[in-house]
Amino acid sequence: MKVGIIGASGYSGELLVRLLARHPQAKLTRVTSRQLAGQAVSEVIPALRGQLPGLAFTNSDPSEVAASEEELYFLALPHGVSAEYAKALTAAGKKVIDLSADFRLGSTSLYKEYYGEEHPAPELLAAAPYVQPELERMLGREAWKTAALIACPGCYPTSILLPLAPLLKSSVVEKDGIVINSASGVSGAGKKATAYYSYCERSESASAYGAPKHRHLSEIEEQLALYADADTVVQFIPHLSPMRYGIETTIVAKAKSGIEALYEVWNKAYPQETTPFVRILPSGTFPETRYVVGTNRADMSAVFDKRTGNFVITSTIDNLWKGASGQAVQIMNLASGFEETAGLL
Amino acid sequence: MKVGIIGASGYSGELLVRLLARHPQAKLTRVTSRQLAGQAVSEVIPALRGQLPGLAFTNSDPSEVAASEEELYFLALPHGVSAEYAKALTAAGKKVIDLSADFRLGSTSLYKEYYGEEHPAPELLAAAPYVQPELERMLGREAWKTAALIACPGCYPTSILLPLAPLLKSSVVEKDGIVINSASGVSGAGKKATAYYSYCERSESASAYGAPKHRHLSEIEEQLALYADADTVVQFIPHLSPMRYGIETTIVAKAKSGIEALYEVWNKAYPQETTPFVRILPSGTFPETRYVVGTNRADMSAVFDKRTGNFVITSTIDNLWKGASGQAVQIMNLASGFEETAGLL
Amino acid sequence: MKVGIIGASGYSGELLVRLLARHPQAKLTRVTSRQLAGQAVSEVIPALRGQLPGLAFTNSDPSEVAASEEELYFLALPHGVSAEYAKALTAAGKKVIDLSADFRLGSTSLYKEYYGEEHPAPELLAAAPYVQPELERMLGREAWKTAALIACPGCYPTSILLPLAPLLKSSVVEKDGIVINSASGVSGAGKKATAYYSYCERSESASAYGAPKHRHLSEIEEQLALYADADTVVQFIPHLSPMRYGIETTIVAKAKSGIEALYEVWNKAYPQETTPFVRILPSGTFPETRYVVGTNRADMSAVFDKRTGNFVITSTIDNLWKGASGQAVQIMNLASGFEETAGLL
Amino acid sequence: MKVGIIGASGYSGELLVRLLARHPQAKLTRVTSRQLAGQAVSEVIPALRGQLPGLAFTNSDPSEVAASEEELYFLALPHGVSAEYAKALTAAGKKVIDLSADFRLGSTSLYKEYYGEEHPAPELLAAAPYVQPELERMLGREAWKTAALIACPGCYPTSILLPLAPLLKSSVVEKDGIVINSASGVSGAGKKATAYYSYCERSESASAYGAPKHRHLSEIEEQLALYADADTVVQFIPHLSPMRYGIETTIVAKAKSGIEALYEVWNKAYPQETTPFVRILPSGTFPETRYVVGTNRADMSAVFDKRTGNFVITSTIDNLWKGASGQAVQIMNLASGFEETAGLL
Repeated sequence: MKVGIIGASGYSGELLVRLLARHPQAKLTRVTSRQLAGQAVSEVIPALRGQLPGLAFTNSDPSEVAASEEELYFLALPHGVSAEYAKALTAAGKKVIDLSADFRLGSTSLYKEYYGEEHPAPELLAAAPYVQPELERMLGREAWKTAALIACPGCYPTSILLPLAPLLKSSVVEKDGIVINSASGVSGAGKKATAYYSYCERSESASAYGAPKHRHLSEIEEQLALYADADTVVQFIPHLSPMRYGIETTIVAKAKSGIEALYEVWNKAYPQETTPFVRILPSGTFPETRYVVGTNRADMSAVFDKRTGNFVITSTIDNLWKGASGQAVQIMNLASGFEETAGLL
Repeated sequence: MKVGIIGASGYSGELLVRLLARHPQAKLTRVTSRQLAGQAVSEVIPALRGQLPGLAFTNSDPSEVAASEEELYFLALPHGVSAEYAKALTAAGKKVIDLSADFRLGSTSLYKEYYGEEHPAPELLAAAPYVQPELERMLGREAWKTAALIACPGCYPTSILLPLAPLLKSSVVEKDGIVINSASGVSGAGKKATAYYSYCERSESASAYGAPKHRHLSEIEEQLALYADADTVVQFIPHLSPMRYGIETTIVAKAKSGIEALYEVWNKAYPQETTPFVRILPSGTFPETRYVVGTNRADMSAVFDKRTGNFVITSTIDNLWKGASGQAVQIMNLASGFEETAGLL
Repeated sequence: MKVGIIGASGYSGELLVRLLARHPQAKLTRVTSRQLAGQAVSEVIPALRGQLPGLAFTNSDPSEVAASEEELYFLALPHGVSAEYAKALTAAGKKVIDLSADFRLGSTSLYKEYYGEEHPAPELLAAAPYVQPELERMLGREAWKTAALIACPGCYPTSILLPLAPLLKSSVVEKDGIVINSASGVSGAGKKATAYYSYCERSESASAYGAPKHRHLSEIEEQLALYADADTVVQFIPHLSPMRYGIETTIVAKAKSGIEALYEVWNKAYPQETTPFVRILPSGTFPETRYVVGTNRADMSAVFDKRTGNFVITSTIDNLWKGASGQAVQIMNLASGFEETAGLL
Repeated sequence: MKVGIIGASGYSGELLVRLLARHPQAKLTRVTSRQLAGQAVSEVIPALRGQLPGLAFTNSDPSEVAASEEELYFLALPHGVSAEYAKALTAAGKKVIDLSADFRLGSTSLYKEYYGEEHPAPELLAAAPYVQPELERMLGREAWKTAALIACPGCYPTSILLPLAPLLKSSVVEKDGIVINSASGVSGAGKKATAYYSYCERSESASAYGAPKHRHLSEIEEQLALYADADTVVQFIPHLSPMRYGIETTIVAKAKSGIEALYEVWNKAYPQETTPFVRILPSGTFPETRYVVGTNRADMSAVFDKRTGNFVITSTIDNLWKGASGQAVQIMNLASGFEETAGLL
């Protein structure tokens, strides 16, 4: 299967190229970037020196890529820009997997509230499922696999929804009063040319940012509400940590049952034999980002605090793999009938 | 004034040596360590090469140091070991500033619950004040300055009590339902010779640990209860961050008044002109560990989330300075009538 | 093909497990470690959680592994220990790829001089080729592929021999007066439980060590002499850099011809179309470790300084991939008739 | 003594502010920066929150600062810009300590060759001594102390000249064939807003750059020639290391005498009792950047390699302290009759 990537100049675009370069079934035949057009992919991404011979960045005119022979496209573009390509590509019968925020929200008013602009393509929203693959499997849903346009979850939402959604759905935790802290590696901010993101400024520095209303909050709450079957308001506080990759998420939620029930729900939602990318760790141990960085896995565990009546739930992912490009490839694998782990181990 | 340090082989002992080496009034004349006895201080602490000529580590027999000519001693020892020295030194009329956990708790049963042993010197507890200097000043208390034995707060507690205690005292926040996440640099674990704390294992790694019942929790709750004037139970989750120094603390507490009232309380507790080591940052900005590392300052700010009704409060300190040795020197300065900032800028 | 690893508790053993876990032709069926026997591999190496189901560490008695059904074994053991296994396994007709230093030197007296002990198995030396795969190809040699026991080059030597050996062979540089500086990531020291290698001690720290007579020097000079066809003495200075992985090597050598001749030699030694794991970069650019870390590639470039008459040659590798386990898998691939890059992209 | 800083928006300017803020004799009363004019110094440099009350950045018009009441000015400006201020300030009778490259070279043609422009103020050159304080003391020179304009050495040159100059002067090493490798922390590049210097790009990355003709080479060779009393050409290769601060320099030079003679020369050049900022370490040990970062000290050691006949000499400094701002304050101290270490311990 020939696949293409639109907008591969950022970190998630680069990882997509690397993952597809070694994918056993998908063949990466087109990579676009306005700013890099004409340059060899293996020069722009020096980690790939000697690979992908002949593949160069091309211009990314929507009509041109719509007329291309690739069957499937990944969009690794900023929000607001993705929609234009999604329209052209789906109209041309291509399958589109979008890593931007453009089709993550069901509500256009929420989009406007959090992104400051009118939604760029509301007509596509209804037919663009938001796909957290493991949760779709938990719900027994398969229809998304044939959708023309699929929205990939954001990085923070992935680290939060995977542990929390099943617990809300089965009422193991209270939906009210949830407090979430997530620490992200610096690559989460994208490839930035500012003093703030320079090596000397980010080393030895931890801090909160963007609280209390980070953009991902819209996506987190909209999704949680689906599982809680009720409006859900959470306290979400993102942090920057002095590391390149990884997200560590800590969720405090009021327990409505014991820790055994929580683990039972998780084990049923994510049967360990058939869920390659979610690992459930024993209560009392804590996932560490170093063990998931460079993998497509989410690790999670929970502990009950009898003093407060809360569960303390922690999860870790690689923000660029499971939080973006790795999950996008996983989605392609499932939608295309490939092995779920193809190219991802 | 001649001062000594008992047990200077760890990180807080080393910083004490460095701070006292450049203190304008205190003169460091004795440094003990069983394992380092006989070695020159400036060889063991290479950052001090060429300084402290003639000063070598000596043995640390309690009776010997009790008979020494130093007026004041800092104890930078593990809990359980400190008490023995505190007894001998105070009996000999020395002033003692203890950086261990031995005299932080008022309750010996709490000590046993959290530290797993009987309290080593309950008879000294009553006369050993727990001194968070800025909070003592807020309360208008001076009596601690003449105490023979002073307990220094722990690092996590310092980062939590400074922002939270005044708010509980003035009922600006609810005492129930408080959630605290603190990310610490690796030096918080001490100078460790284990693979877990090796460079390759700690780089690129963030994780929770020790939840839900870290030892510092006992101290945090006992202190908060004094300010809330009622038993206080909090959810405290410590994390390890891939940095050497610094603590970033995030407190979520239900608001009982507006953000202006919160800032008013803080500004009254810590008048900025006369409180050199607490900086109150504008709401909407967030303190960063990089700006306090290598200083004795706590930076703090808060923001109100109208969606949840919570305050999100963040603070940062250097775990070894304001969280340990810097604060110990500040306590010495205040107790000895020196300038509060002497040797600390 | 069933393969096993003896001694997989260190960093190179761990990487071997990870590389073999995803190898398309080799199947990892046995992993031994005295200290880890009985534990699941995916528990000990948490990056592999959910993979290698059923595979646990076993005891590593030489006679037992000699009687096993695996065809090929990797030895990831300390020097001095490897030989015992090499004897038992080769006697049993197994193919052995040894990552230790035991069979790298042709001279047993050199071994004694640098390693402080008698060589543990001199009788095996003659039949144990030292295999730097790209150099073997340059020399048109194939016989090593059928050897029962193959010695893998060390990490520093790999980063030095790849650029320098062809230049000495074709007399593009003087063999006298060569100065080599190599900076290594901390993992080069192995998985260490000492304060010296702790996160707080290694961060922000660069230093030389082990000069002027690091153990790898014996291997470097013995090999260089083969290509220079004369005794060769070099100045080799290893350094530790605050990073986990990677080696950056800088070689200063007196030029005997122009920079074009140097590049011609390199291009002939490593035809870029058929040499996947050596990249020759343009003169005036410099390889960076970040681009080779996580790959099996060596990048190299050179510049001529007309002021001094020297070539300044720089190369980078990942010390654990091309410098150890990746190269070992590459050697297996070539010896077994697999694609050279199998499992390594 | 009132002092000012021109151009304090970069890293060396910031450190100057911090050092002067705690200096016992000099009082920092003016800090200029075109881009920061009007902002409080303690807001721009958050490490100083609560300090330097009332001090704000002002505009930096040369005539205006010439008319100011400050006695001494530090110039922390880019090369080419410094000269303009140096002229105006010296004409107004101020003492000027320049951290830029403008007055480091005696030769204007060398300036043009390495900096690509005509020298901006050749008429000031003759009266502007280049001051490496320890070397001036070794030479018994005092005249520089009364110069109106003093040029501070660059960071790489400081780490090279301190160990090497006395050895060349006393012919302990050959002047020909010297090879120097220096690894610098990222702050050496200044406060940069480019993707290249971003956290994600610099972590885990070591590489050479700027070889073979880095700008500092002109200064290094011009100075070495003075001590060797003959033209001196060296091979100098700078590297970037994944750390914020520090320079580690390795010099390989042909020995003309034994290691004892080398140490004798060093000990005579830098009597350890009276040279606070140079530490001579035993042969066989190696200085580490972590021990000098945050200090004004250079550590150095050397070892003789009988196999090659070379000395391997290593030194470490903090590039911003001893390599820039710390040394500038040291120069002010000596020129003003203050204690050499004032404000620097």
